Amino acid sequence: MSTPGLGLPMVVPAPDLPARVRIHEVGPRDGLQNEKATVPTGVKAEFIRRLADAGLRTVEATSFVHPKWVPQLADAEALFPQVKDLKGVHLPVLVPNMRGLERALALGADRIAVFASATESFAKANLNRTVEESLAVFEPVVARAKDEGAHVRGYVSMCFGDPWEGAVPLHQVAHVCGALLDMGCDELSLGDTIGVATPGHVLELLAALNEQHVPTSVLGVHFHDTYGQALANTLAALEHGVTTVDASAGGLGGCPYAKSATGNLATEDLVWMLHGLGIDTGVDLGRLVATSEWMADRLGRPSPSRTLRALSHKEQ
Amino acid sequence: MSTPGLGLPMVVPAPDLPARVRIHEVGPRDGLQNEKATVPTGVKAEFIRRLADAGLRTVEATSFVHPKWVPQLADAEALFPQVKDLKGVHLPVLVPNMRGLERALALGADRIAVFASATESFAKANLNRTVEESLAVFEPVVARAKDEGAHVRGYVSMCFGDPWEGAVPLHQVAHVCGALLDMGCDELSLGDTIGVATPGHVLELLAALNEQHVPTSVLGVHFHDTYGQALANTLAALEHGVTTVDASAGGLGGCPYAKSATGNLATEDLVWMLHGLGIDTGVDLGRLVATSEWMADRLGRPSPSRTLRALSHKEQ
Repeated sequence: MSTPGLGLPMVVPAPDLPARVRIHEVGPRDGLQNEKATVPTGVKAEFIRRLADAGLRTVEATSFVHPKWVPQLADAEALFPQVKDLKGVHLPVLVPNMRGLERALALGADRIAVFASATESFAKANLNRTVEESLAVFEPVVARAKDEGAHVRGYVSMCFGDPWEGAVPLHQVAHVCGALLDMGCDELSLGDTIGVATPGHVLELLAALNEQHVPTSVLGVHFHDTYGQALANTLAALEHGVTTVDASAGGLGGCPYAKSATGNLATEDLVWMLHGLGIDTGVDLGRLVATSEWMADRLGRPSPSRTLRALSHKEQ
Repeated sequence: MSTPGLGLPMVVPAPDLPARVRIHEVGPRDGLQNEKATVPTGVKAEFIRRLADAGLRTVEATSFVHPKWVPQLADAEALFPQVKDLKGVHLPVLVPNMRGLERALALGADRIAVFASATESFAKANLNRTVEESLAVFEPVVARAKDEGAHVRGYVSMCFGDPWEGAVPLHQVAHVCGALLDMGCDELSLGDTIGVATPGHVLELLAALNEQHVPTSVLGVHFHDTYGQALANTLAALEHGVTTVDASAGGLGGCPYAKSATGNLATEDLVWMLHGLGIDTGVDLGRLVATSEWMADRLGRPSPSRTLRALSHKEQ
């Protein structure tokens, strides 16, 4: 889709970019887990169905974390069965430990994600463990998931900067990536959790990982738009050959008007760029915009996605 | 400046980017002309002084257009003398015609800008002339400005898409650029007035202009963030060798919450990327953020700049 009837954006490929990008949609999990509002289970299921209808082929559905830590996703057991039979879409779920994995497997989940940190400070704050302790927890989880034939994604957060430690050495990121791959992860997602990265840093990290025998084909990027850098960083990653990009429909997960805005890259803004570049995503932008508008209505607040606002049929 | 005390962003140059970028700050002119609020002359002068103090070396000050068309800038005659003696900063002013030029020259302006359109629809809507008629108006204006020793910038709007015509052929843009250079313009600013461009389109236009003997050294880029693409497009332009980038302090000029948001690229978001890339701008980001916060208070609304919001000392 484009600006209706006007043929915009003009489609002009750039040299040496991938022909196709897989968007890993994180709105229902990473997005809603960071929203204040608690969304009814039926609305979440409808959101996931609409995202699949819009052409997204990977939609991270929920998290089997203890409800005490993420009350917004406490209904994982009720939600997952409502969507698991959707055709043509992968529905990974996040699991924090073996107990979460067993709950997910019992419901038939066949795509699992674990969430590691590149920094000690965030491992402590988010997981209440050291980096090594958290990796030790994940090792049998990943092994068991692989035994069950599941596909496993490893998130690595704080790859480009940490709110307590500042700069994050490349070798720390490479170490965690290597450990996750060694234990059997099929793919990794490199997270700029506080949104501070710039394009040279992205290229340097990707090259450093390649040098440590981590192929680009297993790497996805997960940028936050806190400093407005997410799409420029994505372009740099595409130039390096990355073909998996995480994004959140409507930019869910960060309040657009708060100082602490730490929202994910909005899927709409990403799709506008990719389609302008002639890169196939499978996504129908018009349906995606309609879905994110519908969800914004449910949440009772406007979306921070600029493309969504530009294409919206409503005055906001 | 960076996140205080944390050394962020990490400074990591990318291959083949320029060592230095000249930011052409358009907030006081392009920004304020599109704000609903009318700002007192003294506040405008203070804004320009603070931008210069923050290290910006080119600050487009105002427009000598008829007050009937742009009432927000009706005080050009009162404002310009208050700032013209600022040291170390260029203060270009926009002039629509010979009468505007004479008013500007009489006050000692030595940098002039004219504003052309790449499309007939926008020429008609904005200038009430055909493209050729508007170029004919500019020809003696540019000649007279050059005779007086002034530096002349030519804006070319709607280079990447037009809200009435949709796609804009490259040869139309090249024709207007060539005409402006032939009449004596020293530099051009390629405007994505409705913010629809994507990076491949940027690279294609720059290459097409080079083929038409327009050197990259005279080209600046002027992106709007309507679809969130401005910074990614800027990265593409830098990769092509562009070293002049237009931006608006605090993203002035587009309402952050309106459907019709058509704001300029925020200078803060641009500076974050450039400094992360190790590119010299001369700008002190902390002072710039403080200036844009001060201006947002005067306008009574928050800034759409994501970097500004992330670095703000205030809860918003």
